[in-house]
Amino acid sequence: MENFSFKNPTDIRFGKDRIDSELRDVITSFGGNVLLVYGGQSVKRSGLYDRVLKALDGLNITELPGIEPNPKIDSVRKGQQLVKDNNIDVILAVGGGSVIDASKVIGSARYYEGDPWDLVLDSGKRMALKQLPLVDILTLSATGSEMNRGSVISNPETHQKFGTGGPNTPAVSFLDPSLTFTVPTRQTAAGSMDIMSHLIEQYFDRSINNDVSKGLIEGLMRSVIKWAPVAIKEPDNYDARANLMWNATMALNGIVGLGDVNNWTVHPMEHELSAYYDITHGVGLGILTPRWLKAVQKDSSTHELLARFAKNVWGITVSDENEAGSEAIKQTYDWISSLGFEMTLPEVGIKDETNFDAMAESAVTTGDLSRNGYIKLTPDDVKAIYRDSMTTENL
Amino acid sequence: MENFSFKNPTDIRFGKDRIDSELRDVITSFGGNVLLVYGGQSVKRSGLYDRVLKALDGLNITELPGIEPNPKIDSVRKGQQLVKDNNIDVILAVGGGSVIDASKVIGSARYYEGDPWDLVLDSGKRMALKQLPLVDILTLSATGSEMNRGSVISNPETHQKFGTGGPNTPAVSFLDPSLTFTVPTRQTAAGSMDIMSHLIEQYFDRSINNDVSKGLIEGLMRSVIKWAPVAIKEPDNYDARANLMWNATMALNGIVGLGDVNNWTVHPMEHELSAYYDITHGVGLGILTPRWLKAVQKDSSTHELLARFAKNVWGITVSDENEAGSEAIKQTYDWISSLGFEMTLPEVGIKDETNFDAMAESAVTTGDLSRNGYIKLTPDDVKAIYRDSMTTENL
Repeated sequence: MENFSFKNPTDIRFGKDRIDSELRDVITSFGGNVLLVYGGQSVKRSGLYDRVLKALDGLNITELPGIEPNPKIDSVRKGQQLVKDNNIDVILAVGGGSVIDASKVIGSARYYEGDPWDLVLDSGKRMALKQLPLVDILTLSATGSEMNRGSVISNPETHQKFGTGGPNTPAVSFLDPSLTFTVPTRQTAAGSMDIMSHLIEQYFDRSINNDVSKGLIEGLMRSVIKWAPVAIKEPDNYDARANLMWNATMALNGIVGLGDVNNWTVHPMEHELSAYYDITHGVGLGILTPRWLKAVQKDSSTHELLARFAKNVWGITVSDENEAGSEAIKQTYDWISSLGFEMTLPEVGIKDETNFDAMAESAVTTGDLSRNGYIKLTPDDVKAIYRDSMTTENL
Repeated sequence: MENFSFKNPTDIRFGKDRIDSELRDVITSFGGNVLLVYGGQSVKRSGLYDRVLKALDGLNITELPGIEPNPKIDSVRKGQQLVKDNNIDVILAVGGGSVIDASKVIGSARYYEGDPWDLVLDSGKRMALKQLPLVDILTLSATGSEMNRGSVISNPETHQKFGTGGPNTPAVSFLDPSLTFTVPTRQTAAGSMDIMSHLIEQYFDRSINNDVSKGLIEGLMRSVIKWAPVAIKEPDNYDARANLMWNATMALNGIVGLGDVNNWTVHPMEHELSAYYDITHGVGLGILTPRWLKAVQKDSSTHELLARFAKNVWGITVSDENEAGSEAIKQTYDWISSLGFEMTLPEVGIKDETNFDAMAESAVTTGDLSRNGYIKLTPDDVKAIYRDSMTTENL
């Protein structure tokens, strides 16, 4: 087992209707000048926006609406201007991972004099800054941003989508599963796939005898596999939404990957897809994950872990390791497909290979995949995975 | 799923030999007056004491040695005097759960004018106090005290052993698995049983669809079941010690019990044993746990969860729930026994039932077992479990 450090002081308030009684005290503990960040109209339609304003009645609220999925650096730039101009004490993010991610970088940009894209390209720079306290009200179970330091920001001009880390996790996160009842089927599916992908990326790792982490991940995987289809079928099933919400947070608050040694692979490959084609992150992950697992399986040193995945996650009892691995990949594919996704790139509008060379090159560089992937991947290997994703032939 | 709150800011430094390079910076960030708390001679024999003094060279060190297993309130009283007299800035606990537990209450007693036993009888009082920052160097994998607010303190005069909670978790915990190489077999076994019991107490709970917690616990159980025998056979197997150490912390840092609704049962029953007879906590848990599971099984509403325990923890594939549960209890007993424990009360010196009435009465009161146990237990029920523990007849 490898050495690791861990500290995560986010204050989690999990459960129904806590914002009405608790939000005001939380916010005012940081000050009275609030930047309220959110996305589109859904928080207004759902009534959440009004509940928030009611809870914060009398405070100085500055609004930054319009944060897009795959949040853009331009939104962060707007936020930077607002927090400086309005002497903001605390940022309140109301939304999913995109809104929280943008808010985190805005919180750092408060203490940075240059363009915030610098902070995305060089997160070391962000880590060295102060950061405004961030409170969030989560409305989508997916990214885990509500309890970690990370953000992913896109720059459409340069076709870049990168992760960046700040010095702090959110100060307080309100996780109310009932706020996700109105999340549309497709977003519920995409969020669930994002959770599953976070777990897979951390599970398939070369760390030796890292059994606590692997055991925790297996439990989380079984829970998302069980509850995602329920939430899709019954959008207001509280327990389904609650399990997905807490699962999303636990999958990426740092704990289950402690002791890991490899970089993630599928996320950098997907970031290229959504940077070039602006597709939904979870859908891209759903298409790439089974193809990547097939590529993993070609290296026999992975068979033992694939067989463990088969047994402890999918309950597959076949004794031959390779056969068990194949069955696990098939069940993974079937589960993703059952969530209602398109399962090939052409179905999401990526009809040809025009950008594959540039994307593969960039994914390998960004993810350091040729040196530190769970299986090492060259640009040609990544391109082959993109190509495999054009059809269902090689599954 | 139930509402819950969670915040745990302990800074974990996990891995080999980090104290030599990191301890001094950590301690001096809180100040220069240090209370060094430890137990017996083992920290001196192992060389750890000298390493600590070397790292802290030049600081004002006050020592409180002699903290006993099942730490006594008298030790806390001594500590209270020392932190007040020496204007202590930070407590450094070097040892296992007993040393850390005593140190936590001493840290609160710094800000209390009365007898610290008041703070054990009324943890609300402790929660309302300030607490000195606590840094610890863990030398035994067992109680999880290194990442939670709890302490268990004994009062031999009144035959009482109670849990108490303070406002803070330890500020920084150094978890170096190699420091547990020298832990004797029996203590390794007792610690592992303590971990397993913490997991069982949180797993057997009536919360509905609390699948994230249950999945996490199943992973932790499989890991302790796998690695405890290895650590006993090969005391300096780093990965075995590392898995047990991180497992112990994760089992009781609050995460895996989030959303639970019931009180613990076996711990209050065991606390009576060790309060009356000063036996090793883990040994008492090892004797009581299988008998309690037998009592649990008499209530058919528990069969579904027992069958899940059988399948996901022990890999038992029998389809009949009651049969699967019986097999799981048998395997649990066999695993405990394989750790080398005495498996009946007479073997640990409890030869008759003299104190069973008083102990049963107290366990039910302390644990609120007749109202909020996973299965509700009257004093007569608890007495029956103590009686069952006199022999192996009813297993």
